Amino acid sequence: MRPDTRENNQLRPVEIIRPYIKSAEGSVLISVGDTRVICTASIEEKVPPFLRNSGKGWITAEYSMLPRATQQRTIREASKGKLGGRTMEIQRLIGRTLRSVIDLKALGERTIWIDCDVIQADGGTRTAAITGAFVALVDALAKLKQAGTISKFPIKDFLAATSVGVVGNEVRLDLCYEEDSSAVVDMNLIMTGQGKFVEIQGTGESNPFSSEQLMELLEVGKAGIAELIQLQKNALGEHASYVGVGV
Amino acid sequence: MRPDTRENNQLRPVEIIRPYIKSAEGSVLISVGDTRVICTASIEEKVPPFLRNSGKGWITAEYSMLPRATQQRTIREASKGKLGGRTMEIQRLIGRTLRSVIDLKALGERTIWIDCDVIQADGGTRTAAITGAFVALVDALAKLKQAGTISKFPIKDFLAATSVGVVGNEVRLDLCYEEDSSAVVDMNLIMTGQGKFVEIQGTGESNPFSSEQLMELLEVGKAGIAELIQLQKNALGEHASYVGVGV
Amino acid sequence: MRPDTRENNQLRPVEIIRPYIKSAEGSVLISVGDTRVICTASIEEKVPPFLRNSGKGWITAEYSMLPRATQQRTIREASKGKLGGRTMEIQRLIGRTLRSVIDLKALGERTIWIDCDVIQADGGTRTAAITGAFVALVDALAKLKQAGTISKFPIKDFLAATSVGVVGNEVRLDLCYEEDSSAVVDMNLIMTGQGKFVEIQGTGESNPFSSEQLMELLEVGKAGIAELIQLQKNALGEHASYVGVGV
Amino acid sequence: MRPDTRENNQLRPVEIIRPYIKSAEGSVLISVGDTRVICTASIEEKVPPFLRNSGKGWITAEYSMLPRATQQRTIREASKGKLGGRTMEIQRLIGRTLRSVIDLKALGERTIWIDCDVIQADGGTRTAAITGAFVALVDALAKLKQAGTISKFPIKDFLAATSVGVVGNEVRLDLCYEEDSSAVVDMNLIMTGQGKFVEIQGTGESNPFSSEQLMELLEVGKAGIAELIQLQKNALGEHASYVGVGV
Amino acid sequence: MRPDTRENNQLRPVEIIRPYIKSAEGSVLISVGDTRVICTASIEEKVPPFLRNSGKGWITAEYSMLPRATQQRTIREASKGKLGGRTMEIQRLIGRTLRSVIDLKALGERTIWIDCDVIQADGGTRTAAITGAFVALVDALAKLKQAGTISKFPIKDFLAATSVGVVGNEVRLDLCYEEDSSAVVDMNLIMTGQGKFVEIQGTGESNPFSSEQLMELLEVGKAGIAELIQLQKNALGEHASYVGVGV
Amino acid sequence: MRPDTRENNQLRPVEIIRPYIKSAEGSVLISVGDTRVICTASIEEKVPPFLRNSGKGWITAEYSMLPRATQQRTIREASKGKLGGRTMEIQRLIGRTLRSVIDLKALGERTIWIDCDVIQADGGTRTAAITGAFVALVDALAKLKQAGTISKFPIKDFLAATSVGVVGNEVRLDLCYEEDSSAVVDMNLIMTGQGKFVEIQGTGESNPFSSEQLMELLEVGKAGIAELIQLQKNALGEHASYVGVGV
Repeated sequence: MRPDTRENNQLRPVEIIRPYIKSAEGSVLISVGDTRVICTASIEEKVPPFLRNSGKGWITAEYSMLPRATQQRTIREASKGKLGGRTMEIQRLIGRTLRSVIDLKALGERTIWIDCDVIQADGGTRTAAITGAFVALVDALAKLKQAGTISKFPIKDFLAATSVGVVGNEVRLDLCYEEDSSAVVDMNLIMTGQGKFVEIQGTGESNPFSSEQLMELLEVGKAGIAELIQLQKNALGEHASYVGVGV
Repeated sequence: MRPDTRENNQLRPVEIIRPYIKSAEGSVLISVGDTRVICTASIEEKVPPFLRNSGKGWITAEYSMLPRATQQRTIREASKGKLGGRTMEIQRLIGRTLRSVIDLKALGERTIWIDCDVIQADGGTRTAAITGAFVALVDALAKLKQAGTISKFPIKDFLAATSVGVVGNEVRLDLCYEEDSSAVVDMNLIMTGQGKFVEIQGTGESNPFSSEQLMELLEVGKAGIAELIQLQKNALGEHASYVGVGV
Repeated sequence: MRPDTRENNQLRPVEIIRPYIKSAEGSVLISVGDTRVICTASIEEKVPPFLRNSGKGWITAEYSMLPRATQQRTIREASKGKLGGRTMEIQRLIGRTLRSVIDLKALGERTIWIDCDVIQADGGTRTAAITGAFVALVDALAKLKQAGTISKFPIKDFLAATSVGVVGNEVRLDLCYEEDSSAVVDMNLIMTGQGKFVEIQGTGESNPFSSEQLMELLEVGKAGIAELIQLQKNALGEHASYVGVGV
Repeated sequence: MRPDTRENNQLRPVEIIRPYIKSAEGSVLISVGDTRVICTASIEEKVPPFLRNSGKGWITAEYSMLPRATQQRTIREASKGKLGGRTMEIQRLIGRTLRSVIDLKALGERTIWIDCDVIQADGGTRTAAITGAFVALVDALAKLKQAGTISKFPIKDFLAATSVGVVGNEVRLDLCYEEDSSAVVDMNLIMTGQGKFVEIQGTGESNPFSSEQLMELLEVGKAGIAELIQLQKNALGEHASYVGVGV
Repeated sequence: MRPDTRENNQLRPVEIIRPYIKSAEGSVLISVGDTRVICTASIEEKVPPFLRNSGKGWITAEYSMLPRATQQRTIREASKGKLGGRTMEIQRLIGRTLRSVIDLKALGERTIWIDCDVIQADGGTRTAAITGAFVALVDALAKLKQAGTISKFPIKDFLAATSVGVVGNEVRLDLCYEEDSSAVVDMNLIMTGQGKFVEIQGTGESNPFSSEQLMELLEVGKAGIAELIQLQKNALGEHASYVGVGV
Repeated sequence: MRPDTRENNQLRPVEIIRPYIKSAEGSVLISVGDTRVICTASIEEKVPPFLRNSGKGWITAEYSMLPRATQQRTIREASKGKLGGRTMEIQRLIGRTLRSVIDLKALGERTIWIDCDVIQADGGTRTAAITGAFVALVDALAKLKQAGTISKFPIKDFLAATSVGVVGNEVRLDLCYEEDSSAVVDMNLIMTGQGKFVEIQGTGESNPFSSEQLMELLEVGKAGIAELIQLQKNALGEHASYVGVGV
């Protein structure tokens, strides 16, 4: 049985509060079980050097955990003076996957900064961050659209993320920290509203896995993401209707 | 008139939610008007090198702001690779003032890490951090006391902080960001439950101030701190009775 | 047609020279087409703090590119004073995947440092690094076995890596730089001698992909890895027979 | 009795040598007892980005101690690769307080860099730095005035600093290191020629203090600063007459 | 007898392979005994700020060792986050000495980046780097000349480097690592094709040396460098004829 | 004629004030013309890891310039967060050359930290630093000898340093900054009381030099150093007699 008695293919309770920070163009507090992440989207009217005069915009992301988000306090990366490899991997993942559903031309020469700050961590912080950041991003771009700053809404499809894994011999959806620590296979899936893959990252550090296991993992994950996207739509209310219209 | 129509000697609405983070020994979300800070207290069973074998404990603090706590997004110190001077000043202040009401011998050879993370900033973040961190510290030490790990409760007195300033010609309590930006004199006061000063930091960068103005500022601040300490007591409930008993 | 007129499911020419650096316990110069990587394995008779007194060993990896491995000179990370996110991701990947085929208990309390230095880059540097590093690792551990320092050879299975991708509408194996730059889907596969997955990292930044495409990619990659493992066996000569014997 | 037999309200012997460094626009070696600080003022004909095209100038300060200024050698911040919190606090304080007596418009779009390097430390290094830096600043600006580069002398008033503290039960002026280490209350005062406060920083880390003690400390400090300003005037000779004329 | 039975005034076997890296404008793998260094020359069409609009070009160099170039693995400077003093000294030396034979005006406003990466170290890595880098530099500039980008070939003379030392009581040429470690006097000589000194760096850390020893060292070194320059000419083939023509 | 009308083989006026910093075991203010350096020697009762339990001591040096020691203000290395290549080269040189006259066994397992801080720079700062640091080192070790902490005085010979160069066609001793900037050959000589070479560093960046020029430079430098050593003896008074006695 799972630590919280869920079914193997059941998500943890998800809550998306928006807006959450008054000064940000888009902001969300997402809870996935005990994992809680503040996601904000900030608009900056310039692009990085490699995009200047390209007519294209950019989405970039930063990720951090409060020191006491975890069971044992972790040292701040600001105090250590450098970002760890895990943080870099995660912020690159968040930016890359969000960009996959954006029409950067339609966004125009501006940058959206996504900030994901984990205030409580219980497994699945990167996937919760992506799921929440997508909602904050919709809200920020809706402001641009409503203000007439952009003419076409640049988000082509919904995007959400979850984890799947093999714990013992069972394929499970949306692992909490306790399950994640003992999983023999661990996989993050990021998919679109149309059920396509944006990113698959599966690893069997302690136990290489077969094609059959892979198929099972993908199936369970796919269903979980469909649910998450429905939750995003509910949370977004009217703003949900912007997504994909400009395609 | 003040931006939010308060009286000059009136605090903003204060809310203290405790506990706020499930994994921390003590944790608080404090709101002072639109300023919101997550404060946690974490117990570590060792002390910095200069205190080893001294029989004494230590309190240390770290402070940070989420990038989008502010009106304009600020760059993460973790990304810059170093802490700014303002952050260092504030975290030194938080640690130093909390230590002033602690009996470090009674604490024993352990360190309490205070983390103050500003999730929304509207002026007075360092004073809100101190006021909130004190509550988280009481809770963390109450756990030690209840577990019998320490025999004497090591907090000698209450401690709270607020700001006062001169805006135009008026002395005002608990400045919000808009007032803070236009203040000619700006002062932070940190005081104890017995009405003594732990720290006074007053600066008249754009306008040196007289002894008379100083007296007025202190008087208004003193009353504000008395109110804050009453709010801490209400928030702490039973735990409030631990404070000062061991003196 | 592919830039070098290969078939879509054909690897580039692979060469593995061993030993290559006289002072290292294991060392290889691997060429995969124009991509060339020096891989060394160094034995250190201690483990990181989290493994002390655990009876277990560790494999860790570092990855770097010479500044002029690339078409345009890239700035040295040593001169910038920090590792980039891409480097960190790659070195974490190399270490993690090598560990998946190692019996860390049988290795004993020692660390194997894997260094992968790209001297010429033409796509697929991380997968060439893994494929070459595996060979260097076998050689280093063979020395320990021959010296009687370890009684059981700790490598459980072969391990190799390659990339697959979708370029235009075609699924292709072992992308060179020119193909990699224009691929709409890009996937790295790391697999064992028994044909199991150790890691799958697939991303469709510019074009989310379907389950059908995923299946095709995996099939082509699987065959490529089987070939690479045969090449490792040829290169290793007698040392090949150590692998998997102790399982 | 005090370690050097002074009265409680007596300053240590003060010496101000000017100029001290031949290449600097303004330079001073100030001795306050055994504390010795080299202060220079350097003119740069540009301003930081936030002041460009504002018509205003800027004063910024840096502070450092030679490793062997102290009883025990301290590690160089250049070797550690970062500035400590204490250094940052002090250099922010020096810059902020000097700016309080400057008409930045009259200074015009240029920056004055103040460098304070402690060559021997015996308590009160930051207050000696401010008192000495003020003199160097007058000299540097006098050169600009004499050259006709500026038409109005931009210094509005004199500025000096000293420390006061409670040692045992006694309020004392200008603490040396030995006294500073055992003080229960420690306060830095920075005041103008007209007797106004620019900055008050008082802390009772080991002993919160009362309003009565505060009044006593301010009174003693005020008298000390008046003396220091007289010593600045003596040291400045003719240049003293520039100060405040343009107000 | 020397570890490899050479005569005291005999160089180790030297091999210069060119080109070695396909993407670089000039590239060489130089072997001097077991010391092997990859040297590349990269052309950048801009100069550092201090040379802008001067009509002059610049040569700059970077030096690094692979971690396992040495008998014991050394930690990467990129991982430590800073360059060590030895590395800085060497890269300053390489750049400075190459510039001494360049007509920077004839080079025009462009920078040549020299990268020297030691893949195997057995003493004399800095002198091998200079000797090899000179060849790569000739090749890179020959491309500019052949393309008509520059009208005058900017290299005025040949340049090579070697080490000499006193081991026991004997003066020896081109020390290998084993000799270098036990030398009482150690000297690096960098000289031109015309037999002039560009740089002499001699140190007798464990044993100050006399004028007579100095004379002997210089004589042996001079002969060694003449041989190295002949080897450069042989390796350069036709390109050798460019050097010094424009003088 | 030289800028200060000296003869070509004449030193600038030298002054050595000792002690200069009350807290240091040895301290000197050395002036060589307008170049002024504070040199201190600090005793630490432990050695770096590579010497533990070896019975040997160590001498290490650090070098820095005040920002306004130079004609134009230079940026602090502490603010930049890293040491420059020039600083590293110089501090390695100071440490290495001082060690050459020390019997590290006789010193015992302790480290002497040499700090050289340039407060005014007019050429020859590194050679003035070495000449001054030697005097501070004698004084620090004399204290150890007088206290009976060491039984044998560990300094084997005197040590001083100066620069020589070719300006125009003339060989000159002890170059000031103006001469140094226009010299075609620049050489630093560090020699012992017995007239032996500890280090020669000669460079002809803009003009390779001949053997004849080298001989002339050495001769002039040798005489200058003999004078400097006499000045050290005068400055050291009684302490001079310790040097070389234990040999």
